[in-house]
Order: sequence, then C-alpha cells, then structure tokens
Amino acid sequence: MNCSLARALGAVGDWWTLLIVRDAMFGVKRFSDFQQSLGIARNILSARLERLVAADILSRQGTAARPLYELTAKGQALLPALVALMQWGDAWEVNGAPPVLVTDAAGRKVKPLEVRSPSGAVINGATVQFSPGPGADRRTRAFFKALQAAKDD
Amino acid sequence: MNCSLARALGAVGDWWTLLIVRDAMFGVKRFSDFQQSLGIARNILSARLERLVAADILSRQGTAARPLYELTAKGQALLPALVALMQWGDAWEVNGAPPVLVTDAAGRKVKPLEVRSPSGAVINGATVQFSPGPGADRRTRAFFKALQAAKDD
Repeated sequence: MNCSLARALGAVGDWWTLLIVRDAMFGVKRFSDFQQSLGIARNILSARLERLVAADILSRQGTAARPLYELTAKGQALLPALVALMQWGDAWEVNGAPPVLVTDAAGRKVKPLEVRSPSGAVINGATVQFSPGPGADRRTRAFFKALQAAKDD
Repeated sequence: MNCSLARALGAVGDWWTLLIVRDAMFGVKRFSDFQQSLGIARNILSARLERLVAADILSRQGTAARPLYELTAKGQALLPALVALMQWGDAWEVNGAPPVLVTDAAGRKVKPLEVRSPSGAVINGATVQFSPGPGADRRTRAFFKALQAAKDD
C-alpha cells in the first residue's frame, strides 16, 4: 500500500536514525559529537549520516577533513514529527519527568501537538477519518473499499 | 542519553511497526487484514502485534480463535506523531499527491501540525530550543553543557 507514512519511514530509513535527526536539532554538527551522544560504532554512524545526506535531510558542510552535518529545510521540517514523538514519550513512558524540554527561544514550553480540523476542533483516534487521496494507487483504493465493506458488515 | 524520543522509539520497537499502528488507526482489527495490508510474514506480524500488546499500544479483544486488535488510549495518543510523519511524507516524498487523506468526520482535511509556543507563535527548526528537563540524568545534563560550550566556542 502506498502511503506517506511508509514513504517517510523509508526516507529516514531506520527508527534509530531519528536520533541523529534529534541530535542535529539539538545543534550537534560534528561526527565525534554524534558518536558521543549516540554511542554507536563509527561505521554505522557513518552509513546513517550518508543516508541522511542522500535523502536530503542533512547536508554536509565544512571541510572534507572536518565535515559538519546540518539539517536541510527538509530535515528541519521533521520537527513536528519529532516533537510529537517526544511528547508521547513524555506522557506515556517517563512518568511525567521529561528528560528534555522543548521550548521557544524565551524558554517557554511548547504546546502539545494536536490534530485539528479546519475549524480548530481537536481530532482524536476515535474521530479521525482516513480516505484515499489523489495519489492513491489501485491497491490503496481497494484497501479502503474492503475496510468500509468490513465495517458495514 | 535518556530522552523521550528514544523511549518512544523503544516502546514502538521498530520503524515498520508504526505501519501496524497506522492500520489500526485506519480501522484494521483482524490478523488477516493486517497481513494483507502489510504483506509481511505471519510470524513477523505475530511478533510485532505481541510487542504492541505488551507495550499497551494495542489490546487483544475478541476470542482466542478470532482475536481483534484495538488501539488502547496510549496507542490512540500516537495520532499526532503519525499524522506529523504522514504530512512530512506528503510534503517531501510524494510530489504533492497524498495517497491517503486525513480528515475530520465531515471529510475536511486536518490542519498541518505545527510546534507552537504558549502564545501561539510557530516554532521551527531554527528557533526551537532544547534543555535538560526534570527527568534528565547526569549524562543528558553533561551533553547539553558540552553542546552549549561548543556553541560559545
């Protein structure tokens, strides 16, 4: 089934690669600093950085001897997804004591991310609807048709 | 480094497991329907469903012979993270033709998720700040201290 979530997962490539994007959001730029933060082997970190550069999520700046990795616009656009996952972890996995605070430049905590309709009403897991969009392939359309038939059943 | 993002990734367990959560959001409940949607081997799907049940993201309902998997409150709370990733995929990976639309019950497309300060100002990758929170361990505090020193350098 084609779906932008699957495409997003494919672009980032690996769950833990998101921690590299997180570190880049924090302001980490140097290979050695990513390595110290993540505690993974050089070759694995190197492969993941390359992948993120190839996906245009990071760009390689600096010199060949001293590369600096910086988020592109596409990489920075992952901020809502990252913050949404962090907030979920804060709420459900760390007993109300967030290890990391996400704030604006003045140090004020950001608001919880919520899915909202154009009128501003909060949409939750019970009220959200999904349907095939203009980019849906035949399989996606068939999937939603079968799902609707099962619900009507 | 302890961080709610890492905890969230650990709870879900695997990048592609998020597609099971997506299908559950779509309304898929039966093993065979997850299998048809995801096209993965029975034993892998089975292990991932068990993991999501153990993490209290899905609950097993129905009968032993015909189990139904439903999102718990904790699972439904992944909606903003899921929608944020889908919107990122829509914007950067599918050339503006979303395969799947996310709407309210009336069929109106949901708004793009944005990180906002308490005053409502949009915060982006350039203006967001991160700092150690009440749940930060010694390593997390040291990480942010070193990062600040590198910036001041």
